[in-house]
Amino acid sequence: MLSNVRKTRIEWCQCDPLGIIFYPRYFEIFDTCTTTLIERALGMNKIDYLKAYGIAGHPVVETQARFRTPTRFGDEVEIVSAFVACGRSSFKIEHKLSRAGVIAAEGFETRVWSARDPQDETHIKSQPLPPIVLARFNGN
Amino acid sequence: MLSNVRKTRIEWCQCDPLGIIFYPRYFEIFDTCTTTLIERALGMNKIDYLKAYGIAGHPVVETQARFRTPTRFGDEVEIVSAFVACGRSSFKIEHKLSRAGVIAAEGFETRVWSARDPQDETHIKSQPLPPIVLARFNGN
Amino acid sequence: MLSNVRKTRIEWCQCDPLGIIFYPRYFEIFDTCTTTLIERALGMNKIDYLKAYGIAGHPVVETQARFRTPTRFGDEVEIVSAFVACGRSSFKIEHKLSRAGVIAAEGFETRVWSARDPQDETHIKSQPLPPIVLARFNGN
Amino acid sequence: MLSNVRKTRIEWCQCDPLGIIFYPRYFEIFDTCTTTLIERALGMNKIDYLKAYGIAGHPVVETQARFRTPTRFGDEVEIVSAFVACGRSSFKIEHKLSRAGVIAAEGFETRVWSARDPQDETHIKSQPLPPIVLARFNGN
Repeated sequence: MLSNVRKTRIEWCQCDPLGIIFYPRYFEIFDTCTTTLIERALGMNKIDYLKAYGIAGHPVVETQARFRTPTRFGDEVEIVSAFVACGRSSFKIEHKLSRAGVIAAEGFETRVWSARDPQDETHIKSQPLPPIVLARFNGN
Repeated sequence: MLSNVRKTRIEWCQCDPLGIIFYPRYFEIFDTCTTTLIERALGMNKIDYLKAYGIAGHPVVETQARFRTPTRFGDEVEIVSAFVACGRSSFKIEHKLSRAGVIAAEGFETRVWSARDPQDETHIKSQPLPPIVLARFNGN
Repeated sequence: MLSNVRKTRIEWCQCDPLGIIFYPRYFEIFDTCTTTLIERALGMNKIDYLKAYGIAGHPVVETQARFRTPTRFGDEVEIVSAFVACGRSSFKIEHKLSRAGVIAAEGFETRVWSARDPQDETHIKSQPLPPIVLARFNGN
Repeated sequence: MLSNVRKTRIEWCQCDPLGIIFYPRYFEIFDTCTTTLIERALGMNKIDYLKAYGIAGHPVVETQARFRTPTRFGDEVEIVSAFVACGRSSFKIEHKLSRAGVIAAEGFETRVWSARDPQDETHIKSQPLPPIVLARFNGN
């Protein structure tokens, strides 16, 4: 299945009074990695693929993470993100974040391909993954 | 074991272009609930219990969450947080966030009672939970 | 003109490695105070007044802030927010955040009453403040 | 005086239900730009220059910003940051953020070179800017 590598730097604004990254910031990083992975799969920016496929987003319904060793502001990190499973309307992604070649954090997430409910704009409904999207997520 | 209830409101600043809460914000909410729970257990504000027990914090090493139904800005929510297990230096907390009596999100976290390494201020080391802290977390 | 008071507590998730609030978090606090102030003026939650008046939001176009003394996690603070001027489609709000009766931070913001452009959903256009809204902001 | 250019991309996690960047996120971006500018001036990462000069940080005491046109997730932006004035212990920085060559946001900030008070670790005191730091900020 398709994977992608993204590099970023841990910044002061992501760190807490312990001087290390505040763990919810890892989920912000993972969210951006997921965007980048899907953009790569579909060959379009998120703003464009949302429009092209008529969806409103792909919210997370389940997540897990392990933080093995803390990272600090100034740390250069690399995140490898990959699709690990695709269902009818949901898909799973795994993120491995490493610093100097050592894994510091891992995240697993299940997302749902979702559109606004035409009957009620404030509600969101799952949508089947279009075949072309499924093929691309599978790396075909 | 000890539990605590906290009420808050989902705000615009926590929501994303889908109009629903951006899931990393749930972990910020859970983190504050953990603080409130420990403050209640120990009868002191966090800034005081960190000093009283000579620790620097209690970072999360593992977390899991399920988001069953989205919440939106303006939603009044209630979070029940409880200790579910305590080890030598780690402890587990469960959070159940509900809106109008229905569970919308659940979080599970493992944290480590941690101090700065006196040899190297930039490192953090696990510490055994003091017996009094352990007793309070257990609700005694 | 109308004013409102909101109380909150500075939390760990808002603090940086200095151990004090990271200043962009003040703007998140101010944004929530503005929501609360407008909700009070209009007698409706934000999600409802956006719909009732056909707007998409009221983004900030200009802001200023002074941070006189730092606040820390655990600090109970009180924010007094007030309309200070209203134009055709813009309005100005002032926030004074105090701890134990002493002002710690002040913010000033100019916002624009805005709707999505019907020609292009991704664009946002200023709208004249409806007379009833203007009257309420003025405290009438 | 010294200036620096940084490129970044506006991400989903920085946008609000309007679909545009939530303005406090600009201050997070500006904060990182300030770090990068000072790192360039001093030839060291922040974690190292804090230690080298015995300071705890350089908190913002005053800020102003103008948001001329909204940015959206996926927008590639460029921020030019420059020192505009240096006092005894404070210094001013200006940030100009542009997209496709057009300025979208501007920020101005006053920061104070600060150390922990040795009498009370929870307090922060301004420190005179060391001559070498002053010279570097001035581009010498």
